Formats: sequence, structure tokens, C-alpha cells
Amino acid sequence: MLALVLDEGLDLISEYPRPTPGPEDALIRVRLAGVCSTDLEILRGYRQFRGVLGHEFVGTVVACDQGEWIGRRVVGDINIGCNECSLCQQGVYTHCRSRTAIGILGRDGALAEFLTLPLSNLLRVPDDVPDEAAVFTEPLAAALQVLGQVEVGPENRVAVIGDGKLGLLVAQVLATTGAEVTVIGRHPKKLALAAGWGLCTAQGLDSALRQSEPGTWDLVAECTGNPEGLAAGLELIRPLGTIVLKSTIHGLSSVDLNRVVVDEIRLVGSRCGPYGTALRWLQAGRVDVTSLIEARYPLAEGVRALEHAGRRGVLKVLVQP
Amino acid sequence: MLALVLDEGLDLISEYPRPTPGPEDALIRVRLAGVCSTDLEILRGYRQFRGVLGHEFVGTVVACDQGEWIGRRVVGDINIGCNECSLCQQGVYTHCRSRTAIGILGRDGALAEFLTLPLSNLLRVPDDVPDEAAVFTEPLAAALQVLGQVEVGPENRVAVIGDGKLGLLVAQVLATTGAEVTVIGRHPKKLALAAGWGLCTAQGLDSALRQSEPGTWDLVAECTGNPEGLAAGLELIRPLGTIVLKSTIHGLSSVDLNRVVVDEIRLVGSRCGPYGTALRWLQAGRVDVTSLIEARYPLAEGVRALEHAGRRGVLKVLVQP
Repeated sequence: MLALVLDEGLDLISEYPRPTPGPEDALIRVRLAGVCSTDLEILRGYRQFRGVLGHEFVGTVVACDQGEWIGRRVVGDINIGCNECSLCQQGVYTHCRSRTAIGILGRDGALAEFLTLPLSNLLRVPDDVPDEAAVFTEPLAAALQVLGQVEVGPENRVAVIGDGKLGLLVAQVLATTGAEVTVIGRHPKKLALAAGWGLCTAQGLDSALRQSEPGTWDLVAECTGNPEGLAAGLELIRPLGTIVLKSTIHGLSSVDLNRVVVDEIRLVGSRCGPYGTALRWLQAGRVDVTSLIEARYPLAEGVRALEHAGRRGVLKVLVQP
Repeated sequence: MLALVLDEGLDLISEYPRPTPGPEDALIRVRLAGVCSTDLEILRGYRQFRGVLGHEFVGTVVACDQGEWIGRRVVGDINIGCNECSLCQQGVYTHCRSRTAIGILGRDGALAEFLTLPLSNLLRVPDDVPDEAAVFTEPLAAALQVLGQVEVGPENRVAVIGDGKLGLLVAQVLATTGAEVTVIGRHPKKLALAAGWGLCTAQGLDSALRQSEPGTWDLVAECTGNPEGLAAGLELIRPLGTIVLKSTIHGLSSVDLNRVVVDEIRLVGSRCGPYGTALRWLQAGRVDVTSLIEARYPLAEGVRALEHAGRRGVLKVLVQP
């Protein structure tokens, strides 16, 4: 099959072996896949991943042992736990120490014609959710995770630092609580998108600090993907406030822990989220995902697609096998 | 009056002006004061404090406008808010942006014959709590703050990193929940103290990691006062676990934020705590504080007392005016 494979470099391989599903797996034909900033981090060496890249997808089940799944349009949880360790037993298989994750950790991903996933990872996509929306299930779930981790409501002032793909999803999700959400970013085009959703915007941290004093925001979501994001968050956050760390940042970061201690700030790491909720939200149109689509490439042009996705300021790039 | 004053250097001054209480203040004769690691940080330049050092004390009210306080033995909340800002209005005057704090921030401290504090900051010391216990009210309150910030109970495995004054208080406080508490430290003498209280101990991180796999502790309290403490905490903590940061660390620290995000770890800054609860606990003998007393100096030997407190491995040094 055709697959975008990271080995020494990133290559499109036309004769990559089609995966063979195990007894509890489904073979899924990928309908549409998305490129995530984590994919770009992986290209730079993050997690030393080798194999088929990609973890955002919508597909159709083409083979499995349970007939009712055949032909179903599905999305799927990207994490596969061992089902045996204490974390899996507690139901948090996303944190299983020997987990695999498609396109990230020990398992081929979605930037290919086919992938396999355990049937228990799959969710059916409602007919009225188009592929272009369903492909956002995984990143929207990651954004929704924040709501399960912090208390936020109409009385709160929230700053989302970073106007990238993830930041714009997180900002929309947080705004559904009625909180006053300000997106702090660098790109007028993306900030205009946020403004169009009724969110406040600030081009750069200094602009945000002109809108309100330092140390007055109740909640900050760090979505920049670079270590400066947390430093900016520490300027914004009020004493006893919470900073949610959404973006994975490679290597060590410099942090003013004294500020964290003296002002009793909480830093909350946040990763994958609830897929079922994300699908429901997509079906209900509670967030705008299609405006985030920047470009669409056939899989045959996958290398170009990744190059495009890696350019500064680019939003979601989709890839169609 | 006699006072230990930090200006260019630390000096004992015999003719330092006795403070004049305002209309809502009490003039307090210090009975006994304690030296805290924060005092040692301040000597190294932390917060650029100038004035009388010290914030741990028990004293006797000798002058104020409300007669019933005169002659009372008291301890006091070290933070004084403005009573006007939004944080003071919310009752969190300890985070008031224009707060003062005795011996730390814009206000003379307790390593002197007298100090002043607003009457509203004072708590009467029960007769059956001796000065040697009451002087621990402030640090014990700081340790107790953790219980208000995280959920911890008998089913949890807890690591306290750091066997100093604060670590040994935090460990005792956390152990009252029934959690299995391990103190990880460097000093056999201090670890023996913890073992005597029925706590688990480990000399060094490697020893702790031989007792249990990395990434399996539910809660870590970082009490080392140095940036390596958090790195050690990140080795110990399980996915979805919480690291409480108790010790103030000057300057920027290197932190593996990727681990925080991927394993959805919470970092919780923690500072001052509930004084009333601390006094009740001291009265009830719920924690052993007197074993933490290492030495006692007259105020006239205050400079020596601070030198002693600054030596490696030294626990609580008390100073008596």
C-alpha cells in the first residue's frame, strides 16, 4: 500500500506492507487524515518514532471478525494499552506504561491507505458528520480534556496562548463555558478567525498585557509548542490560578518555579481527551473546525503536505489516501 | 531595641528603633523566634529584603488599643494585605499584590526584641502549648496547606523529597492521612527521626527508586529548596499524579515539561497555610516539632545563630531575645 513512512528521512513508499489485523483488530481504509504539530515534532526526532506517521484520521472498516463493523465509518482512540497493568486496570490505558499509539509510539499510523486498531478503540461516525469534521475528533478530544481537568465558568477570564491548530480548538472549547476567552497569538489571519467566533484577541503578549494587568487571568492554556509559552503564562496568571500545558515541548524548559510557589499557581499537563464527547460536539456543530482547514493533499503528495504543514502560521493540512 | 538587621550585611544592632504600633496593631515582645530556610535565602539576596529578619515567632502582646490582648501569648499570620484589592476582598490577602510580610517583604520581622502586627493577624496560644512548640505555628501551617490543595488518603503512596525542617513537617502532616509516606533525604540523622515517627525513608533518590519503580508514586512533595528536587519528583510521580512544590527556589529551573504534558502531571505551588489549624495540631500533639530543634541562641548571638542554621543538614535553630 501507499504510506508516508519515517525512517532515516520521510518517504512516500508505494509498496509498504498492508497491515494484518489481529483477532480483535479492525483493518481500516483511511478516508482522510490530518497533520498535527506532534507529527512535525516527530520529524524533528521526538520519541525516535519509526514507521507510518499520522494519528488523526477518519476511515472505513474493511475487515474484522465482527461483521456489524464492516463498512462503518469510524474514528479511533490512538492509544492502545496492555489491559494488564495497574493503570489499564484503573481505566487509564492512555497512560499505560507499555502503551502504543498510532503514528507516535511503536505502531504504524494513519498517513497510509490502511491502518489497524483494536475494535474497542473505534467509534462510529454519525452520518451527518462529514469526513472533514470527523478528522478533527482526536484534536478536539485533546482540547476537551481541559474541561475535565480544571473548573472554568462564566465568571472566569481565560487566556489561550498560541493561535495554532490546537490553540484555536482549545479557545473555542473554553468559550463554550461562558468564560471570557482571549486568544494571544502572532498571526492576524488566525486571530481574525478567533475574533469571528466572538473571542477576544491580542497580537502578542504585550498587547494582552495592555488589555489587562499582569497577574490577573484566572486560567491560561499554553498551546504554543515552545517554552516561552509558559513564561508568558506566568506573567498573565493570577495568584492561585491554573496554567494548563497543552503542547508537548521537547527537552528541558526554563521555568520560574519561585513564582509558581509564592503565588500558589497550578500547572496541569493535558494530553488526550474524550473521543465520544468530541464526536458529539462535532455532530452538534459546537465548534468550528472546517475554518481551520488550510490545505488538502492527496497521499501521493504526502511529503509536500508535511512540508506545507511545517511552514510558520499554517493551520490544518489534510491528506487523502 | 536589640535586632538582627539585614542591610549591606547581617548585623546585630543594639539601638534599632522600637516599632510604634498603629491604631489597629499590637506591639509584641518576642519570646522565641525560629530561623527558616527562607531567611537563609533572603541573606543570599532573595526579594532584596532590608530590615529586621525573621517571621517565625511566639510573643506576648505588650501594647495595643484593645485591653483584652495585653499580656496574651500570641502567634501571628505573617502576611498583611491591603484589605482593598480584589484578592483581599476574596479573602486571599496572603496573595494581595501590595501585601507586606514580616521579615520577608517590606516590614520588619521577628528576630528582634519587639515587632508589630495588626491585631487581626494574631492568634492566642493555648496555655498548654509551650513556646518551643508555638514557634512552629507558621512552618506547620505551611505544611498543612498541602492538605487543602490535594486529595490524599490511606490508599496513596507519597514521597517527600527533602529531609529538612519543612520536609519533615510536611511528611508528618501527610502521614496523618494514613498515606504511606517515604521521606527521601541525604542525612542519616534526619532520616532516623522520620523512621522514628513510623515513616518510610530512603537515602537518596536511587535508594527510593530501588524500593519502587519510577513513575509509581501518587503524590510527591518537593521540599529540597533546590531545582533538582523537581527533576527527582518527575522521576517518581505516576501518570496523573501531583507534585506539590513547597520550597521557594531562586531563579529559573530546568523542567521537563514534556513529561508533565504527556503524563498529565499536576504541579501545585504551595506557600502559607492555616495558622489556627496549626495551633490546634500543636496543642493536640499531632506532629512532633520539638525533635526538630537543633540549637537555641540568645538574640545577642543572632549572627552566629544564622550561621549555624545555614550549615548543611542543620534543622531548626531558635533565637531568644
